[in-house]
Amino acid sequence: MGDKRTELEQLGEFRLIKHLTKGFDVKNKSTVFGIGDDAAVLEFNENEYRLVSTDSLIEGIHFNLMYTPLKHLGYKSVVVNISDICAMNGKAEQITVSIAVSNRFPVEALEELYEGIQLACKHYNVDLVGGDTTSSLSGLCINITAIGRVKKEKITYRSGAKEHDLVVVTGDLGGAYMGLQVLEREKEVFKTNPEIQPDLEGHDYIIGRQLKPEAREDVVRFLEELNVIPTSMIDISDGLASEILHICENSDTGCYIYDEKIPIDGKTSLTAIEFNLDPATCALNGGEDYELLFTISQKDYDKIKGNPHMTVIGHITDKKDGKYYVDKNGSVIELKAQGWTHFNQ
Amino acid sequence: MGDKRTELEQLGEFRLIKHLTKGFDVKNKSTVFGIGDDAAVLEFNENEYRLVSTDSLIEGIHFNLMYTPLKHLGYKSVVVNISDICAMNGKAEQITVSIAVSNRFPVEALEELYEGIQLACKHYNVDLVGGDTTSSLSGLCINITAIGRVKKEKITYRSGAKEHDLVVVTGDLGGAYMGLQVLEREKEVFKTNPEIQPDLEGHDYIIGRQLKPEAREDVVRFLEELNVIPTSMIDISDGLASEILHICENSDTGCYIYDEKIPIDGKTSLTAIEFNLDPATCALNGGEDYELLFTISQKDYDKIKGNPHMTVIGHITDKKDGKYYVDKNGSVIELKAQGWTHFNQ
Repeated sequence: MGDKRTELEQLGEFRLIKHLTKGFDVKNKSTVFGIGDDAAVLEFNENEYRLVSTDSLIEGIHFNLMYTPLKHLGYKSVVVNISDICAMNGKAEQITVSIAVSNRFPVEALEELYEGIQLACKHYNVDLVGGDTTSSLSGLCINITAIGRVKKEKITYRSGAKEHDLVVVTGDLGGAYMGLQVLEREKEVFKTNPEIQPDLEGHDYIIGRQLKPEAREDVVRFLEELNVIPTSMIDISDGLASEILHICENSDTGCYIYDEKIPIDGKTSLTAIEFNLDPATCALNGGEDYELLFTISQKDYDKIKGNPHMTVIGHITDKKDGKYYVDKNGSVIELKAQGWTHFNQ
Repeated sequence: MGDKRTELEQLGEFRLIKHLTKGFDVKNKSTVFGIGDDAAVLEFNENEYRLVSTDSLIEGIHFNLMYTPLKHLGYKSVVVNISDICAMNGKAEQITVSIAVSNRFPVEALEELYEGIQLACKHYNVDLVGGDTTSSLSGLCINITAIGRVKKEKITYRSGAKEHDLVVVTGDLGGAYMGLQVLEREKEVFKTNPEIQPDLEGHDYIIGRQLKPEAREDVVRFLEELNVIPTSMIDISDGLASEILHICENSDTGCYIYDEKIPIDGKTSLTAIEFNLDPATCALNGGEDYELLFTISQKDYDKIKGNPHMTVIGHITDKKDGKYYVDKNGSVIELKAQGWTHFNQ
């Protein structure tokens, strides 16, 4: 190892993965696409690809059991993986679940966790096919791998966006982040005075967005029904800004995103203001909404126009035009990713 | 959750998984076999099955970084998954690697870990296709999922053993366990007096068995060349006794295993005696050898007779005849699993 010591936060997650995996080459013809998209793409038959995605949720980093019910956590841990399969325009069919857990958890706690996992399996019609349960010295780690399918002609990578394409986002953004702020605030209140009941009233929507997100499999179906194949797609786990930058980087393009077009629920905005935060900033950088962000050719615009699940928020430009968002005053500001960088914590 | 609290160690790993996953049903026709074997079995085309296995290695539970070089750890974490694919008579083609790591590790440490992973990928001709790198509050957790292939007519489950079949084991057993004992002893010496250099001389073989095991992909090839399809197969991760009991339970049979037939390397035996342990007990309960344990029809005996990689150690009996091993004095002793039960730690 020598004497050199480079801290993990100097690289950050994305550069770290790139750095660590740069020497790896592909040897099997069944491997179509490896690292660098929402899921790996494998080919086992003529008509379709299989998609593989994997994600870990670590106690103290991704969730806090003070306010995360285990059943919700189980549900969410499945959803975040299914969302990755959706982001390739696919349908998840199998998952494996690996749990490492310390003996401070009783069997009943794991039963609750698995209840949530089972609920998600039912809801998304996914089979639990394997896993591993082991002990840890402290805390709970959940790792889920999802396997899905997509017809070859429908697969969407992050890399297919073209100049003039429209940038579309599903649902609304920033809610999960504001839900987390409310939960964190009430946790602090509780720590100071355990007698005070948490004040979550009026925050059901955003707390639900944080604790029990859904993967937009419905949107994948809508797109099929509308006969739209996005030119690129990604799911919003780290915040809109970070995700659109991934699309631009992988597609070798620029983009313009319009602040005033970003869909934000009224309850998200109100809570943001209550916290002295700019709602648009929460939507841009908040993360964990698990909505889909995709680009479509302008010729497909009429097919999605007026669709309540989809909002056009900008367009793709030539790479040399840069990556910008235009705020409500018309100021043009360079987009920067300020998503989750766990290694800084 | 109610007031009931059942400790994890009351169930143990295998019963716990069974308990937690009992309510899950299979909904997708691509799912052929889910939980309960070395790997899940999926069907994506006419001629072959895809196999999926997943395994976690947790710092402080599965490895101790005081004596485990990170490069070896990376190599081993791939091997244990490939071994599961071998146990289904398959060939691994892809892996995903998820790492959770605390900031006490510098980038250089992860580089070493990935060097080992890369070495294993090269050696076993496997593609790294995805993963997740995140932070943890303490320690290092590695989760690997392997995907492999097997021709439909060649797949071997744990459940196919029949009365009169021969029980065969590859390589030799107990070495990995004795290697661990030596490493643990030297760790204690070091803790008492850090000036003393570890005394590992003469123990290269067993330490190698512990730190850098190999998956017996060569045996899967030999079996193909010999035109032998085992009636059942499992890999030895938890110790021979535990694994043969899995085969018997899944196949609904009994068995007789002969102590004197169990292949044990001389260096393993010598070290066992040095530690006042019975070599056969180490082979029966030691675990982590990652050899293959399989059963074959008697008609195939001539094909494997004299093969230096395979040793017949017993035979399968009717279930009502029980599961026994016969020790060197001819005493017949009931087989009990004393493998790794991490939750007791």
